[in-house]
Amino acid sequence: MARITFWFEFASTYSYLSAMRIEEMARKADVDVIWKPFLLGPIFKAQDWDTSPFNIYPAKGRYMVRAIERIAQARGFKFRLPNPFPQNGVLAARLALAGLEDGWGPAFIRSVFKLEFAEQQNIAERATLAAALAAAGAPEHKPFERAESPEIKSGLRENTDEAQALGIFGAPSFLTENGELFWGDDRLEQALLWSTRIK
Amino acid sequence: MARITFWFEFASTYSYLSAMRIEEMARKADVDVIWKPFLLGPIFKAQDWDTSPFNIYPAKGRYMVRAIERIAQARGFKFRLPNPFPQNGVLAARLALAGLEDGWGPAFIRSVFKLEFAEQQNIAERATLAAALAAAGAPEHKPFERAESPEIKSGLRENTDEAQALGIFGAPSFLTENGELFWGDDRLEQALLWSTRIK
Repeated sequence: MARITFWFEFASTYSYLSAMRIEEMARKADVDVIWKPFLLGPIFKAQDWDTSPFNIYPAKGRYMVRAIERIAQARGFKFRLPNPFPQNGVLAARLALAGLEDGWGPAFIRSVFKLEFAEQQNIAERATLAAALAAAGAPEHKPFERAESPEIKSGLRENTDEAQALGIFGAPSFLTENGELFWGDDRLEQALLWSTRIK
Repeated sequence: MARITFWFEFASTYSYLSAMRIEEMARKADVDVIWKPFLLGPIFKAQDWDTSPFNIYPAKGRYMVRAIERIAQARGFKFRLPNPFPQNGVLAARLALAGLEDGWGPAFIRSVFKLEFAEQQNIAERATLAAALAAAGAPEHKPFERAESPEIKSGLRENTDEAQALGIFGAPSFLTENGELFWGDDRLEQALLWSTRIK
């Protein structure tokens, strides 16, 4: 079965759009999804950005909010930019890595994105993440301790390094097995088509 | 009949993609196209960029080249980045303004984009633009003198000011009559759908 790697960042509004639809779309296309949380912060810092480009370039930020409102409305879900934006998604990403090993990753990831971008909750707070864990049916075995383990911490750093090495500069990004990179939620359809091409 | 305004810049690779398909797509959607050349240079300068973001951020530039190769191949035309990139499209944009008044604008615009991005010719050179004028069937009445007239020069400045006032930060951008802005060739379908909505 063909596979696609879904590179996402919890602070990213367009990653929210893809997280909410990628599993169903990939299933229809007969493609497996590999979920890869990473951090845009170090990648942005390398190009001298200290916050989201949507803050650095206000016209782009205003456009993004309206563009996602239109798309969310068409897809039947809510969107409102949380405050602060961007949020710190490091702990959420570490929990997601644990969950992806344990099987509750995708449900947890979607739950975090919904709390952040539909409910404007702060995903840097443990209470928000605990709610997402509960919603995802994560078992009660000290997920926060696990998320702070050296293995998980270095796993997230490795993902971020790998993203940078792959030439990823934004999120979401989709990588096919034959090495084609696609950036942006609106390229998901094209990425899935390329995933199923003969290599 | 509904109308859509197509904001484009001759140096912009993604504007090439839209210029080659917007008339046919708009006709099918029963929408009139208003072609609006403008300059990204002043808009980029206002955010401290002195060249294309594809040069400032090399990972983004490499991605853009591959992304457009894939799209061009799927749509059956050629693409290769010209050298230098970005090109100076000021004179081309002024000629386009004259052509849009006289009826040969769209054909000329497509011809310029093809010479630039399929044939790697330099559109800052008069010989290239003369070839585009000939290909577009522009009548022989001193188009270069016309392009350098105060009216045309100030028309291009006004377009650029208007783009900036509308919150346009990149090209292509599409503006519907009901004030919705869409950025990027891959949003053209969505922009046309919105154009035909009841206001």
